[in-house]
Amino acid sequence: MDERLQRQLDFSLEIDKEKDVFRQTHLSGHGRHENDAEHAWHMAIMAYILREYANESVDISRVMLMCLIHDVVEIDAGDTYAYDEEGKKSQKAREEKAKERIFSLLPDDQKEEMIELFDEFEAAKTPESKFAHSLDNLQPLILNNSNGGGDWKEHGVSAAQVYGRQRQTQLGSEKLFEITDQIIKDNIRKGNLKADEGAVSDGN
Amino acid sequence: MDERLQRQLDFSLEIDKEKDVFRQTHLSGHGRHENDAEHAWHMAIMAYILREYANESVDISRVMLMCLIHDVVEIDAGDTYAYDEEGKKSQKAREEKAKERIFSLLPDDQKEEMIELFDEFEAAKTPESKFAHSLDNLQPLILNNSNGGGDWKEHGVSAAQVYGRQRQTQLGSEKLFEITDQIIKDNIRKGNLKADEGAVSDGN
Repeated sequence: MDERLQRQLDFSLEIDKEKDVFRQTHLSGHGRHENDAEHAWHMAIMAYILREYANESVDISRVMLMCLIHDVVEIDAGDTYAYDEEGKKSQKAREEKAKERIFSLLPDDQKEEMIELFDEFEAAKTPESKFAHSLDNLQPLILNNSNGGGDWKEHGVSAAQVYGRQRQTQLGSEKLFEITDQIIKDNIRKGNLKADEGAVSDGN
Repeated sequence: MDERLQRQLDFSLEIDKEKDVFRQTHLSGHGRHENDAEHAWHMAIMAYILREYANESVDISRVMLMCLIHDVVEIDAGDTYAYDEEGKKSQKAREEKAKERIFSLLPDDQKEEMIELFDEFEAAKTPESKFAHSLDNLQPLILNNSNGGGDWKEHGVSAAQVYGRQRQTQLGSEKLFEITDQIIKDNIRKGNLKADEGAVSDGN
């Protein structure tokens, strides 16, 4: 087998490990923890189905690809929960190291392409990456909402923290942030999420 | 919330169930059974990484989308193992019913679009659907190969059966079929897969 194809297949086999990186989010129906590969799959389909709500015109295939690969680095770096302030301090360094190792399995041109895509997602400056982040936020939100906010309760997350993260959705999609805001308010009303006045007004 | 967006979110939540549809394939490292959502995610990335090997020029974003949604019907219909001849008899009817129910959650225009995409995959006539089938075959093959052919051993699958299914890979990609053929032969040599002369020559 030629070296190029061998490297592509090595990478393909390596990313199988992403299916063993579990997140804090639970599947709907009060299911088990979700893993990164499932999360990425779900985000990519939602990106396509909801593409009409992107704030700016987007290349949807680039958004989908970004969704699919954005968590590959967690094979080495592990999942860092959105509200784990301690873990987030070392997240960047852990992910940079992982990025280099994992994408280096690919032929050089594809390594470069994937790293560019990954970095674009992380920087969240382009229309595509901003919309991908909207999905990265909305996907776990709809699961958690379907489970009565169980993930928030488990981690004692406050409305301030949720708004802090979910505000990013607005940069990619005003419309999807409207829904996000409704879901959060609804969960505060139901007592699933603790309101803290400052936070709610901060998020609106 | 307007009805259109509500339907899109209902569909998005419904497909979460695909993460609970388990396949016969095991994850690498002699891991657990793989589920449909993970399989679809893996196929879509592999399609992108290996796109240069498609026999014909393909719209890769269409291939990826096809990969992502091709197993949605199994939420209702369940997974039918590639070598389960009995199960395959009722598979089509079960999947047609599921297709109608699940995609009907979407707004009509998106329902139509998704069904068209699903049917295109099933028919395997276009360059995109032929290449998507190559990945549908290659993805479990590399996992099974990494596990010493454990899935074949568990089900007593013969080389004839493997070639029967994997021949379809050739229609989408001659190059990926070359690798497939090498992997199968290698597994026969190692005693992971029982050779039956007729079958091997049939597949070459």
